[in-house]
Amino acid sequence: MQLLTVGSVAFDAIETPFGKSDKIIGGAGTYITLAASFFNKEQAIVSVVGEDFPYETIEGMKERGIDTTGIQIPTGGKTFFWAGKYHNDMNSRDTLVTELNVLGDFNPIVPEAFRTAPYLMLGNLSPEVQLKVVSQMKVRPTFIAMDTMNFWMDIALEALHLTLKSVDLLIVNDEEARQLTGEYSLKTAAKKIAAMGPSKVVIKKGEHGALLFENDRIFYAPALPLEEVFDPTGAGDCFAGGFMGYLSQTNDTSFENMKKAVIAGSAVASFCVEKFGTKRLEEITTADVKERMQAFLQLSQFDLN
Amino acid sequence: MQLLTVGSVAFDAIETPFGKSDKIIGGAGTYITLAASFFNKEQAIVSVVGEDFPYETIEGMKERGIDTTGIQIPTGGKTFFWAGKYHNDMNSRDTLVTELNVLGDFNPIVPEAFRTAPYLMLGNLSPEVQLKVVSQMKVRPTFIAMDTMNFWMDIALEALHLTLKSVDLLIVNDEEARQLTGEYSLKTAAKKIAAMGPSKVVIKKGEHGALLFENDRIFYAPALPLEEVFDPTGAGDCFAGGFMGYLSQTNDTSFENMKKAVIAGSAVASFCVEKFGTKRLEEITTADVKERMQAFLQLSQFDLN
Repeated sequence: MQLLTVGSVAFDAIETPFGKSDKIIGGAGTYITLAASFFNKEQAIVSVVGEDFPYETIEGMKERGIDTTGIQIPTGGKTFFWAGKYHNDMNSRDTLVTELNVLGDFNPIVPEAFRTAPYLMLGNLSPEVQLKVVSQMKVRPTFIAMDTMNFWMDIALEALHLTLKSVDLLIVNDEEARQLTGEYSLKTAAKKIAAMGPSKVVIKKGEHGALLFENDRIFYAPALPLEEVFDPTGAGDCFAGGFMGYLSQTNDTSFENMKKAVIAGSAVASFCVEKFGTKRLEEITTADVKERMQAFLQLSQFDLN
Repeated sequence: MQLLTVGSVAFDAIETPFGKSDKIIGGAGTYITLAASFFNKEQAIVSVVGEDFPYETIEGMKERGIDTTGIQIPTGGKTFFWAGKYHNDMNSRDTLVTELNVLGDFNPIVPEAFRTAPYLMLGNLSPEVQLKVVSQMKVRPTFIAMDTMNFWMDIALEALHLTLKSVDLLIVNDEEARQLTGEYSLKTAAKKIAAMGPSKVVIKKGEHGALLFENDRIFYAPALPLEEVFDPTGAGDCFAGGFMGYLSQTNDTSFENMKKAVIAGSAVASFCVEKFGTKRLEEITTADVKERMQAFLQLSQFDLN
């Protein structure tokens, strides 16, 4: 097992200026593993769903090479549900409904077989839950990445700092990096985050690309200029999943290879926003993702000779 | 004469969260020619100042290879003065004072010797004044670039459209591109601008870099992540000046060479913001600018092999 992810598997209902979805499959864990599956066929997920969760979706994950034995299904439980509405500029959204349900008292249990996974992705969950997963690993993974959000900074900052100490990479967006550090400059913010624990930091800037920091090295990945963003839900998780899928498959955590992983994550995320929910990701192949990675190369390469 | 610029030469008073300047030298024409001088030693400016404008500043421009015979000094006139205050995030500012003075009825006269310049930069001025300069050229220049701003879209949109028809490149920021086209997507906005006349479009995104568009080709130039932006005044003009200085000096308007020109412009702009007004630009050399262009290369290059 090369890559283990912990993250929510959930129901979403999404409203954007372009339309409205029914209750569809969502959740960080869903997007991360789906995105990673374009690169890595050997992965597993630890999560929790309710008895109302469709059997076919779990089967679909298995068909993509995702080991789902770590998904708990507590008796009588209902699946986590989130509903949100995006504003016209697609850069901000209102949460309309959050029903934690089974996620409310999720106690992650990492199956024995996954406890030696060399790559570990901690999807956006409470920092306590994230740390519980790390503590169950038998061998310290080669590379641990984590996502988080403003919400945990507001209500669980101490626990968040504790979890940060045990990871190699924090993946956040610009707003989150600024809130966590109190710094406007993303360069300064990244330095402060590195001092909190993770030696590597990715700051996502949505339509403005992403920055990768490690020591004094910085990589600025462009974003593909799009004519239309249909639904931004899951883009951040797709980035993380594409990144970790690429990194774990190539098994190389050098800065040069992390650059490529950033492009891999950006490429998957750029597909994700083209349709509602996971729809677009289900249509595309690894070849499509690789072709789009080439488009990122075209977009940003120049020489000074 | 390789490059001719028309643009304001002015007094500025600037307040940022880091401090406050006295009345210092500013103006689009000042920044553009100063920035271009790192690449091109054969350039000229058409502008207007008052009798209160310091003789030494004009002398300084001459020493940098800028032909200043096109700067009118009307008797009894006072120099254009602008005072502004930046907000804490440095991304927005309030104009405190605008005294047009001699710029109010500026009638640009292009000296005979400059009327065959192959590269023409129209700094941010009323579109009527910009067009008057174009119409005085004896030979249609190889390449005409123009800047503009929201203000002209509000009060002189028709004239602006007329001027747009006679240029090759429009350089604007994201907000201006969106106002001009009514499109949020910058890719769609660039297409609409191209349909208005300029076959090439640069959209500057400040700390998020810049986009160059020509037909179906797009280049995404990164911005150097900075720990501190001391004073953003003139950064956009430095970009334009660096771009046109590079382009005119290399005399190559291919897409590949325009990419390098975008990096040249970005490099000069990244110096500009490090100190108040033109101060930092007066300290650095062409070698410094070239070194920084290499830093942009480091920042954004990757390979997928």
